[in-house]
Amino acid sequence: MQGVKSRSRVVIENVQPEVDAGRFPIKRTVGDNVVVEADVFADGHDEINAVLLYRKGEGGGPWSSVPMTPLGNDRWTARFTVQAVGLYAYTVRGWIDHFKTWRRDLRKRLQAGQDVSVELLVGVELVQRAAQRAEDADAEKLRAVVQTFTETALRDEQVQVLLDDEVFRLVSLYPDLRLATSYGRELAVVVDREKARFGAWYEMFPRSCAAEPGRHGTFKDLEGRLSYVAGMGFDVLYLPPLHPIGSQYRKGKNNAVSAKPDDVGSPWGIGAVEGGHKAVHPNLGTIEDFRRLIARARDYDIEIAIDVAFQCSADHPWVKAHSEWFRKRPDGTIQYAENPPKKYQDIYPIDFESEDGESLWDELKSVFLFWCDQGVRIFRVDNPHTKAFGFWEWCIGEVKKEHPDTIFLAEAFTRPKVMYRLAKLGFTQSYTYFAWRNTKHELMQYLTELTQTPVKEFFRPNFWPNTPDILTEHLQHGGRPAFMGRLVLAATLAASYGIYGPAFELCVNRPREQGSEEYLDSEKYEIKHWHLDDPEGLHDFIARVNGIRRTNPALASNERLRFHPINNDQMLCYSKTTDDLSNVIVVVVNLDPYHTQAGWVELPLDQLGLDWHQPYQLHELLGEARYLWQGPRNYVELNPQVVPAHVFRIRRRVRTERDFEYYL
Amino acid sequence: MQGVKSRSRVVIENVQPEVDAGRFPIKRTVGDNVVVEADVFADGHDEINAVLLYRKGEGGGPWSSVPMTPLGNDRWTARFTVQAVGLYAYTVRGWIDHFKTWRRDLRKRLQAGQDVSVELLVGVELVQRAAQRAEDADAEKLRAVVQTFTETALRDEQVQVLLDDEVFRLVSLYPDLRLATSYGRELAVVVDREKARFGAWYEMFPRSCAAEPGRHGTFKDLEGRLSYVAGMGFDVLYLPPLHPIGSQYRKGKNNAVSAKPDDVGSPWGIGAVEGGHKAVHPNLGTIEDFRRLIARARDYDIEIAIDVAFQCSADHPWVKAHSEWFRKRPDGTIQYAENPPKKYQDIYPIDFESEDGESLWDELKSVFLFWCDQGVRIFRVDNPHTKAFGFWEWCIGEVKKEHPDTIFLAEAFTRPKVMYRLAKLGFTQSYTYFAWRNTKHELMQYLTELTQTPVKEFFRPNFWPNTPDILTEHLQHGGRPAFMGRLVLAATLAASYGIYGPAFELCVNRPREQGSEEYLDSEKYEIKHWHLDDPEGLHDFIARVNGIRRTNPALASNERLRFHPINNDQMLCYSKTTDDLSNVIVVVVNLDPYHTQAGWVELPLDQLGLDWHQPYQLHELLGEARYLWQGPRNYVELNPQVVPAHVFRIRRRVRTERDFEYYL
Repeated sequence: MQGVKSRSRVVIENVQPEVDAGRFPIKRTVGDNVVVEADVFADGHDEINAVLLYRKGEGGGPWSSVPMTPLGNDRWTARFTVQAVGLYAYTVRGWIDHFKTWRRDLRKRLQAGQDVSVELLVGVELVQRAAQRAEDADAEKLRAVVQTFTETALRDEQVQVLLDDEVFRLVSLYPDLRLATSYGRELAVVVDREKARFGAWYEMFPRSCAAEPGRHGTFKDLEGRLSYVAGMGFDVLYLPPLHPIGSQYRKGKNNAVSAKPDDVGSPWGIGAVEGGHKAVHPNLGTIEDFRRLIARARDYDIEIAIDVAFQCSADHPWVKAHSEWFRKRPDGTIQYAENPPKKYQDIYPIDFESEDGESLWDELKSVFLFWCDQGVRIFRVDNPHTKAFGFWEWCIGEVKKEHPDTIFLAEAFTRPKVMYRLAKLGFTQSYTYFAWRNTKHELMQYLTELTQTPVKEFFRPNFWPNTPDILTEHLQHGGRPAFMGRLVLAATLAASYGIYGPAFELCVNRPREQGSEEYLDSEKYEIKHWHLDDPEGLHDFIARVNGIRRTNPALASNERLRFHPINNDQMLCYSKTTDDLSNVIVVVVNLDPYHTQAGWVELPLDQLGLDWHQPYQLHELLGEARYLWQGPRNYVELNPQVVPAHVFRIRRRVRTERDFEYYL
Repeated sequence: MQGVKSRSRVVIENVQPEVDAGRFPIKRTVGDNVVVEADVFADGHDEINAVLLYRKGEGGGPWSSVPMTPLGNDRWTARFTVQAVGLYAYTVRGWIDHFKTWRRDLRKRLQAGQDVSVELLVGVELVQRAAQRAEDADAEKLRAVVQTFTETALRDEQVQVLLDDEVFRLVSLYPDLRLATSYGRELAVVVDREKARFGAWYEMFPRSCAAEPGRHGTFKDLEGRLSYVAGMGFDVLYLPPLHPIGSQYRKGKNNAVSAKPDDVGSPWGIGAVEGGHKAVHPNLGTIEDFRRLIARARDYDIEIAIDVAFQCSADHPWVKAHSEWFRKRPDGTIQYAENPPKKYQDIYPIDFESEDGESLWDELKSVFLFWCDQGVRIFRVDNPHTKAFGFWEWCIGEVKKEHPDTIFLAEAFTRPKVMYRLAKLGFTQSYTYFAWRNTKHELMQYLTELTQTPVKEFFRPNFWPNTPDILTEHLQHGGRPAFMGRLVLAATLAASYGIYGPAFELCVNRPREQGSEEYLDSEKYEIKHWHLDDPEGLHDFIARVNGIRRTNPALASNERLRFHPINNDQMLCYSKTTDDLSNVIVVVVNLDPYHTQAGWVELPLDQLGLDWHQPYQLHELLGEARYLWQGPRNYVELNPQVVPAHVFRIRRRVRTERDFEYYL
C-alpha cells in the first residue's frame, strides 16, 4: 500500500473479469467456468508463482486455490467452475518462489560447469525451511531429503537429490507466503440457475384465455392453454400484472382517455379496493387458483413469470395508507405520471426521494417476497429505470438472500448506460434494442457489443421481436416472412428470447396508426379472443425452432457467437458452438422479407473444427434437408416466402467408400 | 452504497482520466488542463446537474467547483487548470435539479395551452427553498421574486417572474445538495514543473572532460564544458555516478574481468573507503566543487542531473556497516549480482526482503535528500526495476514531500508492464524502447500507444537514440545519416529526449564485437579524450534542432502528435501542434539512411487549420528553405546524405496581390 514500508515484492494488477474495479459482480450460471487473468510480476529476475483463490458464499471462510499459468508478457491465468447458485468470490495471490529461482539458476550454473558447492547449501536450506512449513508425511519426506543430502559428500548425488522432480513438487506445496501479495480486492460472482442464461419466453394475457369470446379469462382458462404453450416449446410463461385494476382515470380501448363502463382497463393500472400488488384481479380467480396454475405449469416444464410494475392507480390502497410515498402537489393532490405535456392520470409514480424511504423500500421488497411465497421465481420488472438505482441493488440483493434462484428481467428500453447500470446492479436479464436492430450492420455491431466486450460479464440479453408495446415497422410491413426471420434471429442469436403471443404466431401486424408501434385494438386495453388454429400461424415453425434450441447446446449460450462473411448485405451468417465443438450450428438469415437473396458464405473451417480436405455435411434443421459442402466458400439462397433462414448443424463426418461394409 | 437505503438517485461512473481505479495519480505539468469526463445520470426523466470538484494539496480543504457540460449519451465534461507544482485532487458530484426540471416542463405545458396554476405554485415553492439556502443579497433577491409572484394574480405575469433567466441563474447557484451523489473516489494529479514534460538531455562522463588526454577530468573541467553543451541547446546535463569506485573485483577496459592497476573502473561500481552514495570520487573534486558546478551550469540555463544506482561495490561502507541489507550465502559471503551463469562480482545488490527493511529504506531515501541539499533536483535512477516497487512509491513520495520539484527518470529497459508500473508508482519520466523502434510501423505503433492511449496519463517518455549501454545496430550500420535521422525523430516525436555524448555528435559507432550493442573501448571502463571539433560532427545540426524545439511550442508536448499518410514505407510523416493551432509543425523523415526516398504526403488540412482553397507556406526549419503547397497531397523527397528529414513550420498566410502596398 502507498506510503507503507512493505517487503512484499510481487505486484498484481489488471485482474479480469472485473466490473468497475470490483464494484459489481460478474454473472455466471451453474456449471460455468470463471476464467481469470491477471498481470503478476515482481522486480528483478526471480521466479514468481501465482494462484487464483475462490470460495463460495459472502461471509469469508477458507479459499480454494488454483495454480495460475503464465501466458507470456507477465499475464497469468487460471479458472474455476461455479457449482451452485449463489455468490462466489475470487481474488489472486502471488509471491516470489525462491526454490524455483534457485532450481532454474542451478541448472544454468551446472551447464556452465561452475562450482556449485555454496549453491547446494542454499538449496538444501530452502528444502529445510519448506519442511518446517509442511504437514506430517510431507514434512517427513522433506526432512528425509535433507538427511540424504547431508549424508553424502558426492556433489553429483547432492545435485540429484535436490533437483528431483518430486522434491520440487513437495516444496512447491508449501510456499513461503510471509511476503506474498494479495490483489487488493475480492471480486464477486453471482451464480444463477441455467434459466438465467437459457430460456424461451412466451408472454400472454390471462384475461384473453377464455374458451369463448367476450368472457374474462381466468387462471383456470390459462391452465387449459398450457399445452398450447408447451407445444410450441416455451419454458417460461410470462403474465402481465395480475392485480386489481383501478377505475379512476381508467383508460379505454386503444388508450382512450376515458373508459366506457364495460372497458376492462390496463393491467398496469394497478390497485383497487380489492387490493394492490399482493392481490389478484377477482375476475382471474384467487391466489389459490394462481398457485395451482404454477403447479400445473410445472407439469409442462413451464415456469410462470409475473410482472412487477411499481406504480399505482389512484385507487391503490397505498395511496390512502401511505400518501407520503407519493409526491404531493401544492393543491394537496398527488402527482400523477407525466411526460409533459402528456399526462398519465391513471398512474401515480412512487417518489423515491420520499422522506419515508425506509418503510417504502421494505414494502416494495415484500411484494417480491409475497410472490416468492406463492412459488414465483421469475419477475419481469416494468420500467425499472424510472425507479431509484440504489433501490434495485438493495432489493434484488435482499430477495436473493432468501431465494437465490430468483430471476429478475429488466424491462428498460432506455439509454445504453442506464440499461447497463441496471444490469450491473443485479438484474439477471435485460430487454434490449434487438427489436430495432434490423440491418446486417446493426445486428453485427450490437451483438458484438453484447457478446464480445466486457458487457457480457454483467448484461444478459433477452431478445424480443415484439411486445405488447412494440410492433416494429419491420413486422408491420414485412408480413409473415418478417415474423419468421425475426423469430430465427431472436432464438439463435440470443440464448434467452421471447415473444408476445398469440399476436406473434398469428402475425398480427396492424398498428394503431401510421408511424405508431402500438397495436391496433391493443390487448393492453381490452380482452381479445384469438383464433389459435389459424393455418397461416407460425405455431409449428416456432415449435421447430424451439426444438432445435433444446437439442443443440451451442444455442444455449452467447459465449461463442461469431459472425462470418457473406457477400450480400441482406444476408447474415453466424455460428454458435459448444466449447468442445461437439455441437456446431451455422445460421444464415435473409434479412429482406420481400425478395429471394443469395450469397457466398465464408466459414472459418479451423475454428469450426472442419478439415479443408474433407467434405462436411450441413444438416438443415428447419427443413431437414442435407447439403454437402467442402472448403470455406459455399453458396446459400433463401426465398423468404418459403423460409427466410437456414439453421445448419454441421456434421463433420461424411460417409465414404471406406464406410461401405464390403470395403475392407 | 451497496446494501444501504439511500435516497440519492444520481449515478456517477466511468470517470476519466483515472489510473487503475484511482490507485495511482495522473501526471500534469504546471499550466496544463485536466479535462475530466464522467457518465452522470439518474433514473427517470428529471434534469440533473454535475460539477467537477478539485483542490490543491492532499490534506482536504475546500473544493473549487466547475459546472460540467453534457456531451450526449449521459457523458459530461469539465476542465480545470493546475497552477502549481504538487498534488491536486479531483472528483465529480451530481444531483437532481428540480427547478431546472420544473422550468423545462412548464414551458412544454404552456406550449400545449394547459392550465398551469398548480405548477406555478410548485415553482414558487422551489424558489422559496432556494432563498433559504442562498446567501445575503441573493437570498433577498429570491425572496423578492416570491414577493412579486404573490402580489400578482395575473398568470402571465407570474409565469414571467418565475421563468426569468436571472431567477434561474440565482436558483442554480444554490442547489439542494442533500441528496447529491459524490463519485466514490478522489483522484490525484501529480503536477510537476515544465521540465518534467519538456527538456533536452545530454549525458557526459565528467572524468573524460580534462582538457589534455590521459588526465582524470574534474568538476572544474566540466565547468569548462558547459558552454559547449549549452551551445548545442541542451538544458539538462546528466552525469553518471560521481562516487568513489570500488577496487575489489574492479572491471578493466572493455569490461575485462580483472582490472589493470591503472584502470579507473566503472562509475556504477559504487563505494570505496572514501565513501559511498553520499561521497564524490576524490579525482573529480569535492562536494563544494560539485555545488559550484551546479551554480555555474545554472548560468547557462543547464540543470545538472545525477545518477542514483542503488548497488554497492564490495568496498562500499554499507557492506560492513549494514551487512543485513544484503543477502548472505551459507558460506558467510555476500551474494553478488548474477544472471546465471553470468556473475557480476563487482556489484552487491541490495536485498529488499531484508528483515531490516525499515532502516534500509530510510538510508536510501536519505541519499536523494543529501543530493537535494547539494542543489540537485533531477535524478536518473539506474535499473529501478531490480528494486522493490513498493520502495519507489514510498521513496519518491517522501522526497517530493520535501522537494516537490524533483524529477525522477526511470532507467528501466524491461518488460512493458514493469515499465508502466514504475511510471504509475511515481517516476516522472521513463526511458523507452525508442532505441529499438526503427521501422515506420514500429514507430507509429509505439508512439500511438504512448501518446493516444491511457498510458499517456502516467508515462512520460524520454527518447534516447543512444546511451553508454546502447549502440543500436541502426547506428552501427547507418552512419552519419542514421545519427541525424534518429536525432530528429527523438527530438520531435518526444518532448523529452537525450543523447549520450560526445559519442553521439561524433557519430561513434563501433561496437565491442559483432552482435553487441556495447561500444568498443566503452567510456564506462576508461577515460576518453574526445575531439570535439571534428568537422564531421553533428554539433551544429543538433544546435539547430534544439533551437527549433525551443522556438516552436508544438514540440514541447506529446499531446497532439498525429501521424499522416505518406506512400513510402521508408518515410514517416507526423505533425505536432499547439492547442490553438498557432504553431503547426510537420515532420517528414527518411528512415532509410542509405537511399534517397520520396513520397506523397497527405495532410489533414482541417485539423491543421488550413484552407483547401488557399496555398500555404512550409518553412523548412533545418535548412531555411520555403515551399508553397496547396491541398492535402504534396511531394517530398529526402536525400539522407544531405539531411534525412524536413521539419516544416506551416505558415498559413501567403502574401498575395492584396498585400501589395498599392493594391487598394
